Amino acid sequence: MADDFVGPPDAMAVPRFAGPATFARLPRIDEVARCDVAVVGVPFDAGTSYRPGARFGPSSIRAASRLLRDYNPALDVEPFGDQQVCDAGDIACNPFSIAESVETIESASRELLGTANSLVAIGGDHTIALPLLRTAVERHGPVALLHFDAHLDTWDTYFGAAYTHGTPFRRAWEEGLLLPDHATHVGIRGPLFSRKDLDEDASFGFGIITAMDLEELRIPGVVKRIQERVADAPLYISVDIDVLDPGLAPGTGTPEAGGLTSRELLGTLRGLVGLKLIGADVVEVSPAYDHSEVTATAACHVVHDLLSLLARRRAL
Amino acid sequence: MADDFVGPPDAMAVPRFAGPATFARLPRIDEVARCDVAVVGVPFDAGTSYRPGARFGPSSIRAASRLLRDYNPALDVEPFGDQQVCDAGDIACNPFSIAESVETIESASRELLGTANSLVAIGGDHTIALPLLRTAVERHGPVALLHFDAHLDTWDTYFGAAYTHGTPFRRAWEEGLLLPDHATHVGIRGPLFSRKDLDEDASFGFGIITAMDLEELRIPGVVKRIQERVADAPLYISVDIDVLDPGLAPGTGTPEAGGLTSRELLGTLRGLVGLKLIGADVVEVSPAYDHSEVTATAACHVVHDLLSLLARRRAL
Amino acid sequence: MADDFVGPPDAMAVPRFAGPATFARLPRIDEVARCDVAVVGVPFDAGTSYRPGARFGPSSIRAASRLLRDYNPALDVEPFGDQQVCDAGDIACNPFSIAESVETIESASRELLGTANSLVAIGGDHTIALPLLRTAVERHGPVALLHFDAHLDTWDTYFGAAYTHGTPFRRAWEEGLLLPDHATHVGIRGPLFSRKDLDEDASFGFGIITAMDLEELRIPGVVKRIQERVADAPLYISVDIDVLDPGLAPGTGTPEAGGLTSRELLGTLRGLVGLKLIGADVVEVSPAYDHSEVTATAACHVVHDLLSLLARRRAL
Amino acid sequence: MADDFVGPPDAMAVPRFAGPATFARLPRIDEVARCDVAVVGVPFDAGTSYRPGARFGPSSIRAASRLLRDYNPALDVEPFGDQQVCDAGDIACNPFSIAESVETIESASRELLGTANSLVAIGGDHTIALPLLRTAVERHGPVALLHFDAHLDTWDTYFGAAYTHGTPFRRAWEEGLLLPDHATHVGIRGPLFSRKDLDEDASFGFGIITAMDLEELRIPGVVKRIQERVADAPLYISVDIDVLDPGLAPGTGTPEAGGLTSRELLGTLRGLVGLKLIGADVVEVSPAYDHSEVTATAACHVVHDLLSLLARRRAL
Amino acid sequence: MADDFVGPPDAMAVPRFAGPATFARLPRIDEVARCDVAVVGVPFDAGTSYRPGARFGPSSIRAASRLLRDYNPALDVEPFGDQQVCDAGDIACNPFSIAESVETIESASRELLGTANSLVAIGGDHTIALPLLRTAVERHGPVALLHFDAHLDTWDTYFGAAYTHGTPFRRAWEEGLLLPDHATHVGIRGPLFSRKDLDEDASFGFGIITAMDLEELRIPGVVKRIQERVADAPLYISVDIDVLDPGLAPGTGTPEAGGLTSRELLGTLRGLVGLKLIGADVVEVSPAYDHSEVTATAACHVVHDLLSLLARRRAL
Amino acid sequence: MADDFVGPPDAMAVPRFAGPATFARLPRIDEVARCDVAVVGVPFDAGTSYRPGARFGPSSIRAASRLLRDYNPALDVEPFGDQQVCDAGDIACNPFSIAESVETIESASRELLGTANSLVAIGGDHTIALPLLRTAVERHGPVALLHFDAHLDTWDTYFGAAYTHGTPFRRAWEEGLLLPDHATHVGIRGPLFSRKDLDEDASFGFGIITAMDLEELRIPGVVKRIQERVADAPLYISVDIDVLDPGLAPGTGTPEAGGLTSRELLGTLRGLVGLKLIGADVVEVSPAYDHSEVTATAACHVVHDLLSLLARRRAL
Repeated sequence: MADDFVGPPDAMAVPRFAGPATFARLPRIDEVARCDVAVVGVPFDAGTSYRPGARFGPSSIRAASRLLRDYNPALDVEPFGDQQVCDAGDIACNPFSIAESVETIESASRELLGTANSLVAIGGDHTIALPLLRTAVERHGPVALLHFDAHLDTWDTYFGAAYTHGTPFRRAWEEGLLLPDHATHVGIRGPLFSRKDLDEDASFGFGIITAMDLEELRIPGVVKRIQERVADAPLYISVDIDVLDPGLAPGTGTPEAGGLTSRELLGTLRGLVGLKLIGADVVEVSPAYDHSEVTATAACHVVHDLLSLLARRRAL
Repeated sequence: MADDFVGPPDAMAVPRFAGPATFARLPRIDEVARCDVAVVGVPFDAGTSYRPGARFGPSSIRAASRLLRDYNPALDVEPFGDQQVCDAGDIACNPFSIAESVETIESASRELLGTANSLVAIGGDHTIALPLLRTAVERHGPVALLHFDAHLDTWDTYFGAAYTHGTPFRRAWEEGLLLPDHATHVGIRGPLFSRKDLDEDASFGFGIITAMDLEELRIPGVVKRIQERVADAPLYISVDIDVLDPGLAPGTGTPEAGGLTSRELLGTLRGLVGLKLIGADVVEVSPAYDHSEVTATAACHVVHDLLSLLARRRAL
Repeated sequence: MADDFVGPPDAMAVPRFAGPATFARLPRIDEVARCDVAVVGVPFDAGTSYRPGARFGPSSIRAASRLLRDYNPALDVEPFGDQQVCDAGDIACNPFSIAESVETIESASRELLGTANSLVAIGGDHTIALPLLRTAVERHGPVALLHFDAHLDTWDTYFGAAYTHGTPFRRAWEEGLLLPDHATHVGIRGPLFSRKDLDEDASFGFGIITAMDLEELRIPGVVKRIQERVADAPLYISVDIDVLDPGLAPGTGTPEAGGLTSRELLGTLRGLVGLKLIGADVVEVSPAYDHSEVTATAACHVVHDLLSLLARRRAL
Repeated sequence: MADDFVGPPDAMAVPRFAGPATFARLPRIDEVARCDVAVVGVPFDAGTSYRPGARFGPSSIRAASRLLRDYNPALDVEPFGDQQVCDAGDIACNPFSIAESVETIESASRELLGTANSLVAIGGDHTIALPLLRTAVERHGPVALLHFDAHLDTWDTYFGAAYTHGTPFRRAWEEGLLLPDHATHVGIRGPLFSRKDLDEDASFGFGIITAMDLEELRIPGVVKRIQERVADAPLYISVDIDVLDPGLAPGTGTPEAGGLTSRELLGTLRGLVGLKLIGADVVEVSPAYDHSEVTATAACHVVHDLLSLLARRRAL
Repeated sequence: MADDFVGPPDAMAVPRFAGPATFARLPRIDEVARCDVAVVGVPFDAGTSYRPGARFGPSSIRAASRLLRDYNPALDVEPFGDQQVCDAGDIACNPFSIAESVETIESASRELLGTANSLVAIGGDHTIALPLLRTAVERHGPVALLHFDAHLDTWDTYFGAAYTHGTPFRRAWEEGLLLPDHATHVGIRGPLFSRKDLDEDASFGFGIITAMDLEELRIPGVVKRIQERVADAPLYISVDIDVLDPGLAPGTGTPEAGGLTSRELLGTLRGLVGLKLIGADVVEVSPAYDHSEVTATAACHVVHDLLSLLARRRAL
Repeated sequence: MADDFVGPPDAMAVPRFAGPATFARLPRIDEVARCDVAVVGVPFDAGTSYRPGARFGPSSIRAASRLLRDYNPALDVEPFGDQQVCDAGDIACNPFSIAESVETIESASRELLGTANSLVAIGGDHTIALPLLRTAVERHGPVALLHFDAHLDTWDTYFGAAYTHGTPFRRAWEEGLLLPDHATHVGIRGPLFSRKDLDEDASFGFGIITAMDLEELRIPGVVKRIQERVADAPLYISVDIDVLDPGLAPGTGTPEAGGLTSRELLGTLRGLVGLKLIGADVVEVSPAYDHSEVTATAACHVVHDLLSLLARRRAL
């Protein structure tokens, strides 16, 4: 590590319940000389169709992340020590205008990517994935999307609105942001509006690994399918926390029974070493429905693994 | 009572935890031959600046209202028996468009007022008061507004948005819906943006009874001031449940310490017999922040008293 | 104090969160040589018409009572040191038979009164007050009932059932347990079934101090009225915790807005020094609806004041 | 589909958090011309031995079911579109009499089966399964019972009571409602009163698949065993939600560690296509112990799968 | 205001649920050129005798303070605009050593007072008041202590420990930090260990205004007594949030029924304009026992009023 | 069974929600003539580095254990009937001194082992394992430690403190309490401070089965590895409840995503029949973070299985 790297405060000097309220108590972006990865909050939930509240997701995930230590034994890497990670604060969105907020997120993430190599965004509802994908693609070209979610999020419109938390990946496909036949949904389950939802989704080139598929494929089988689909394309990972079972992660807006365990989610992510991860988001944590930060705890561990994957890739 | 009046099911035959999920288990609007007062849900919260979730307010208030009995001893009236009250269901709003929703609420409430003499709306955030006022004024002319709230709600815009839960009464004043010098805020407290907030509010002709004023005026003093300001004008009452202390009514979006007790709120309302109440709303119940329905319980008792006032007026 | 008196363990040796799970960590009835007052649990809630769960009330009140210290400065008495108080455990009721349970409570409390001079029962739903009154009256003759509650509890039957939590005091009046014109309800509020409820209640000789009356009478006025009604008759106090405002005491089954504060309730009780208290119950604590033991905390302070009144009377 | 079929309101016109409070916002039974399956609430919990509150189960399950969409991709069927489903409201039970309520449920379900081909009941405690079985058997003859539960529910009596939530299937066996050697418990776990419990249960012809058996059998193995036991007999499915792990489904009355995941439960149900399902119940959801509707969400997905199985069978 | 004053971000540009996690989103101490008042967190709770968790108090109070606006209409002052306020972060205490932590707080607060004129500390348990008093007295000489609390906090030792949350003011008196006969407890209630507690407390020169005294004195009477006792001495205010009723402020460690309302507490504070406030703390917020931030909301409003009193004094 | 064996009260005579508040309503230690196993509470949490509150763990586990029945079908044993189990109450620890408390626990457990053959301790934080190990080793010689936990707990010091909940097993190794190469951690996961943590842990002779290893090994594989490591050595089992996934067991202090299910934990324990279990503890249940007793329910089932293993061993 270079001498100017800045990590969290020493947990033996500043207890974890004290100190800065940044993600994992990492330095703010203005405190670092360089930045490999920026964690950025996107407190926006005006695109939510059912239970709102993901606007408080970033502060909730940051609160839970106080307990994170640096070294990730599963991936044998120190995500805060082997690369410079910082907290870029929140992108301030207009809570009353989806359109304006999508633009704000796009321009703010573009600007951040002038400083940081990669972003890991913490939402916020899933609407935010679209502008984040746009700027990631600006930099890396069309991506292989790996999408963990109970829902397809490739619907067309809700109430005439094109930009909502149920539609980002249809827009992304329409805008050419996604590499054909490299996108994969993992964790899909629950009732759909109609058979047409699956047909349309397939026509956009998505592959689906359902939550129930985990029963047979187990983690290694899921990892293998993802690796085959992603191959050597630039990889963007979008994790809707409702991919987890609502009993394990109640703090979210559109819960569906029969989800993944956090062990399955983390185990799958850890299998992706070697893929070309270029950016990620973790969305739909809605703390008003959470209990004792269990959902936020799962989310911050997902972020930790994403940061570890970025560190592993950097180490190559 | 006329023979065709329909009330809730007999609580000795259908337990209160069973039976229809309408307000106080009252008949639906399609089940009655006539309708003196309609209770209508307005599940809309896209105008919320802080903690969202009031979109679930109507169902929460209806759930708590299962326990309401008919006879109101404080006002010696049977609000469900001395007039025909029904539940008009929900006004379906577009969660992604404030503008469209304001129009929807306006047209739906106008249509309901073709059937019912008066509406008592259950929100939803305070944005909904504007279209409700518009249709009330269409029918009764400009009104004396009695506004229970921790906040003035006469701000101009938020993030450039003119229609939000912090601005309805400024818009109402601009649109000429309010009788000059008859409007009163009750329960105001908490910090403001600046001294200007009070100056502007006063310039719109509002009087203010702060929450702290209750300490000295007590209920009779508050009632007297309201009576003087309202006089014989048509009266519209808008109750933001955050007028109550957050310790007593946690289920709301912008809590401010130092609020009213529900006894003070109900006692004040009960002092208004004789005034010309023509419509009302009860807003900002956000059940994700509530506990054991205490906020919804307070709200449904407020509705019961409002219905009782309407019944008393009808009895004249 | 006699040498054989037994109190709670020293809080400086056994922390309050440790030690016996009896009320206030007092000795069990089998640990004392004599017993002035026994606190007894009656975990029964099959007489509940709305939200059940008061069967867990005794354990919840005992848990909250760990924090009680002995000396009551408001009444200048040490209820655990100036008399021998013990915990008589629970009266085991059949959860599937109201009739059998009423008998069980009657015989068990009769037996306890062979050992203890007085009982303070912790419920359980209000059904339990009837058998407790029966055995108290066996010993002291008809009593002046002081009844703190949001509800009259003098209804006739529910679903044909004569013994429920809404009917104990009608049965008590029918059985001649209550001294005519000495019974008083305090804290009444909320809608009733009909005007007839009040008429019938009055015909049984009850006086009513409503929750709203507190606004004008304040504590001294309430105390004065109670003293006048009770005079020198043997006094039985029955406290339904729903006399408190649901915002302050959510853990109960039939919440009504506009209730008393715990300060008003405790202040009223403390005004009753000099009256001939002979027994009491505190009922309707339903912990599944409570939060952080706030309802149970209020209830155990009520028990502490009742024990203090008994100690003060004994000291005469 | 026939032209007169009625489904839920369009979720693009009426948001899911608005509209009717029926199960999945389906039409009421009085709104449909015909009825293939009726969902009916049975808000009864007087048969509960430990944590009560399942009387609020039906309203809680209906609230959670607002989020259900129609198409079930796992079974490739539209349960609301391929058959006419409606909500028959609640069967009003006497909360103070188990005996009367068992009769009420029997007569009300008999009457409903005059209109609907099948019932899916939502409880309520497990006591309700007995009268529901009686009327199902009246119509279809003795059934193969498939019973998901942590507990056997074949105990004899509690406190002398023959009809409780721990005894329905012993009564059913005694009454000849169950086909010999076709009944199966799935999910059994936790301590029993004695070895005799298992012996007696076996003597009634039940087979047991314990929760721990899932570890080895996995879903396909469980499905196979069930198929073998049920064969071509008329199948009644009774799901006690406590079959799920309490960490995933806390809102129930007698939790036992080590339960099923909702994925295992749903996966097992989905394996039963081809069996002759004739009726079902989902019981023991107690919302006072639930959090963010996670238990009710699991329960409503179970109902959705049960309805889907009925639709698949109808499609044959 | 000087040009270099820094306030919170504009709430119309950065929504309140976004932006820095400092108190009221104020600048950090390293972001300001000067500092009139520093808000400092002291996340320490090893001195707690019952329910722990106040170590998370500072982050909880900061989270709730996001909603605070600047202008205080009750005191006609802008506490963030009429003086430079900043957030000094947390004093990092050793959670395993009371002695070391008391020293750390003393030295850290001494250092802060080299930068800031006054401190308002947010705890943390009441142990922290002692070192904060020490450094305040170093600067201003012995103080008049105004102590809002349910408890006296003048006990001698617990389990032999001299420095705990029940003993700070005995130590302060022994160390000569308190001006004789100027110290006042407000809000005292609940049982004590013995009569001796009051005698000893009186011998240290404390005056007591009990919570029950509020019933008669009301706010003006309480304010008058405080003014008489404090007179023109330097005033230090220590607010234990358990001075509020546990129903209103459940998030604390040693709840006692019968407490103040937040309106009474805020009203009393606002009466103290003109007194020489030199420092303050707000302690014992324990968020694990809080609900929807109601306790933290009350606490942050207390801090806002304390800052307003400091601003008013500065304006003289 | 000998005639003087005492079990819990008959659940058909005393409902489970009534009766003694001991573990599983078992007799107190002073009520039995002999004692094979004592369950003892150790309400101590001053060694906690993050979320405190485990001091309330013993009462929470006892409350949940009311529902436990005797017969364990998985192990075909009656732990309360095949051996004499009793509840030895709580070891009263000084909440302000870790050092004194460690001594107190050591001497109290030594004394208990003069009466009981084995102890199963319910904590409390993990600090308590060290003194419990000391006295177990005094009696049985160095032990094979089987440690279920998310964390290694072999750190050296925190803030200079040698005795905390993160260090007990390093101290135990240093003190020679652990048999070399027989100790095993099960359930390890989550980030560590550095790679060195693993190196040091390995140097103390621990083997590690991570939570993720469960995915491949499943229960039989885990059991086999444990059996190989333990062999015929005396076995001490220490279960930190945070070995479970926080979604399933939120009531704990340092949650890490990706944990075990309670089925996996119980299944593993049940595989250990035949090993020489001599003592155990179950720690880190922190009820302020729990919901509906789900964590305490899991913990009390673990205790039931531990008692069953002891009974099985005794039966040899």
